[in-house]
Amino acid sequence: MSLQSIKYQRGSLEILDQLLLPVVSKYLTVRGVEDGWKVINKMQVRGAPAIAIVGCLSLAVEIYPEEFGSKKSLRQEIEGKLNYLVSARPTAVNMKISADELITLANDLTKDDAVTVAEMKQRFLNATEAMLEKDIADNRAIGANGAKAILEHVAEATGVPVAGPVRVLTHCNTGSLATAGYGTALGVVRRLSELSKLEHVYCTETRPYNQGARLTAYELVHEKLPATLVLDSMVAALLRVKNIAAVVVGADRVAANGDTANKIGTYQIAVVAKHHGVPFYVAAPLTSIDLQIPSGDHIIIEVRPDREMTHVGEHRIAAPGINCWNPAFDVTPASLITGIITEHGVFKPSALKVEITKLLEL
Amino acid sequence: MSLQSIKYQRGSLEILDQLLLPVVSKYLTVRGVEDGWKVINKMQVRGAPAIAIVGCLSLAVEIYPEEFGSKKSLRQEIEGKLNYLVSARPTAVNMKISADELITLANDLTKDDAVTVAEMKQRFLNATEAMLEKDIADNRAIGANGAKAILEHVAEATGVPVAGPVRVLTHCNTGSLATAGYGTALGVVRRLSELSKLEHVYCTETRPYNQGARLTAYELVHEKLPATLVLDSMVAALLRVKNIAAVVVGADRVAANGDTANKIGTYQIAVVAKHHGVPFYVAAPLTSIDLQIPSGDHIIIEVRPDREMTHVGEHRIAAPGINCWNPAFDVTPASLITGIITEHGVFKPSALKVEITKLLEL
Repeated sequence: MSLQSIKYQRGSLEILDQLLLPVVSKYLTVRGVEDGWKVINKMQVRGAPAIAIVGCLSLAVEIYPEEFGSKKSLRQEIEGKLNYLVSARPTAVNMKISADELITLANDLTKDDAVTVAEMKQRFLNATEAMLEKDIADNRAIGANGAKAILEHVAEATGVPVAGPVRVLTHCNTGSLATAGYGTALGVVRRLSELSKLEHVYCTETRPYNQGARLTAYELVHEKLPATLVLDSMVAALLRVKNIAAVVVGADRVAANGDTANKIGTYQIAVVAKHHGVPFYVAAPLTSIDLQIPSGDHIIIEVRPDREMTHVGEHRIAAPGINCWNPAFDVTPASLITGIITEHGVFKPSALKVEITKLLEL
Repeated sequence: MSLQSIKYQRGSLEILDQLLLPVVSKYLTVRGVEDGWKVINKMQVRGAPAIAIVGCLSLAVEIYPEEFGSKKSLRQEIEGKLNYLVSARPTAVNMKISADELITLANDLTKDDAVTVAEMKQRFLNATEAMLEKDIADNRAIGANGAKAILEHVAEATGVPVAGPVRVLTHCNTGSLATAGYGTALGVVRRLSELSKLEHVYCTETRPYNQGARLTAYELVHEKLPATLVLDSMVAALLRVKNIAAVVVGADRVAANGDTANKIGTYQIAVVAKHHGVPFYVAAPLTSIDLQIPSGDHIIIEVRPDREMTHVGEHRIAAPGINCWNPAFDVTPASLITGIITEHGVFKPSALKVEITKLLEL
């Protein structure tokens, strides 16, 4: 089964400590909101969906054994603690969105006189747990849709009725360690493997934080998938000689026209894929597609501190005094993207706005 | 002035210890062949031309104060010690070529009865020192030819009579630390700066050995050139937003058709440059152009140990158990190369064979 970065049962939560990866695999028990705040703040859990889910679940395990005298006191507890959790990493917008949703639910339940305090607690726990389940279910759907699209593309391109096992490339970490489980782009890889259609997966190191070498490689080794690490500089050489069927990456934000902001290096891989005629897919849940943003030109790219580039841990690897340019993300124009893989299907960038609008209206 | 990695005067040789860079700048005294063998073997000096020159000069400083009873004993000393120096890094072919040249010279001088033992020693020292001077002179010519070509290209492309200062990108280390001094691709950058035509130079980190971050960045900081380090994954984003006038890289080997083997990542940069319409130059002395190799398909690419990718020093950065693909070089097809900058001029890849053949016939 796929790596479990979040282990949850009602009343019990454990997370894989990502600060110790890839060398040590150790689960931390999260007993409540204080623990939740700490593991988010110290980045022992990372990845936008994972942060939100761990935060909310830390409140669920805290509330589970407690008795509340009134719905008002439960509501206050929920609101206060969720807002506190948002403060652990203020830039992680998913935690804020999830907190707001749950606070709205708590307010609604408080107002509904038909609901008892015990029922309110129960429904709050259900809603929190549903977030975990929905994220995994969405990722599984993304995986299935993506694997199908890649295999159909290969079958069509090679003129065979059914494609054989394929080689794919992915970038950064989009797996169990970045989501509630299974993963987005890495979910597509997992699904190919489940279908016995994964010949090999290549993952890039993903400087400067090495999420590929540390986290994706860790997941692939853990699950014994046929995998090889390459450096970010090797993608062109790889596509030239290794017969790669597709590139599949995640997304931080997809604009209405299909332009996609993702981890630095994604745009370069897309350019190189285009040059070699290799299809380039973006795997993203609907929540990452923002129809309010007309195009990638409107996405502001965070530029991060030089030290991430000049040091590995405490070890200096760059000449003292050199300036650095350290954009955390880049924007891949829609024209380089073959398809955007969502839990509801795979869309051409040009069709994205219409298709997503239809889905949202359902 | 440009960084001096090799300080030589007759009877005295010092080299900058590259193992301590970029954090510590310390010169080592090389007193003779034993020291020469050690600094090459321990990689305190690196870069093919630099290795050959330091090896030969270490023999020159050893022989300089010695008295020889006969030309035969001098010849034996030269041959024995040069062959010993070749053993310090057997794969560094330049040391072998230089050793063979000097041994041939020693044999010829031994046979020539008109030459005394004192004259033979003098002519041997002169020949050794000429190698140092020729490498620097060739690099200066490469720098001048390359800077001119880049500026003319910009003037033509923008329709101005004289190009203003330009931004360029380079990869790996091709500077004073890889050559006898000045550098090839970095020599072009130095020349642009001497002409007050360098607005900015960007250098790539160049994983896995980080020659860009450690060595090129060190040289650029040392000479106070306006410079910024980028990661290997950022080239496409850089070319998209930073108005780069040209890419200039070095070469390990250029085939007769212009296909060029160079540090891994070069091919990817060439693809990305083509996509953005940025001219892509290879700077290489004639000695790196091998007309015996018809095309890049005939160049064997060394695949190096996984550990270079999985560790930084003793620090593990990749998940234990992951496979790696670690080609040291890649081949950039001639079709992606705007011009090959040599000490005799800048040639289109398609014209290379004819032009070089002409030069060799002169």
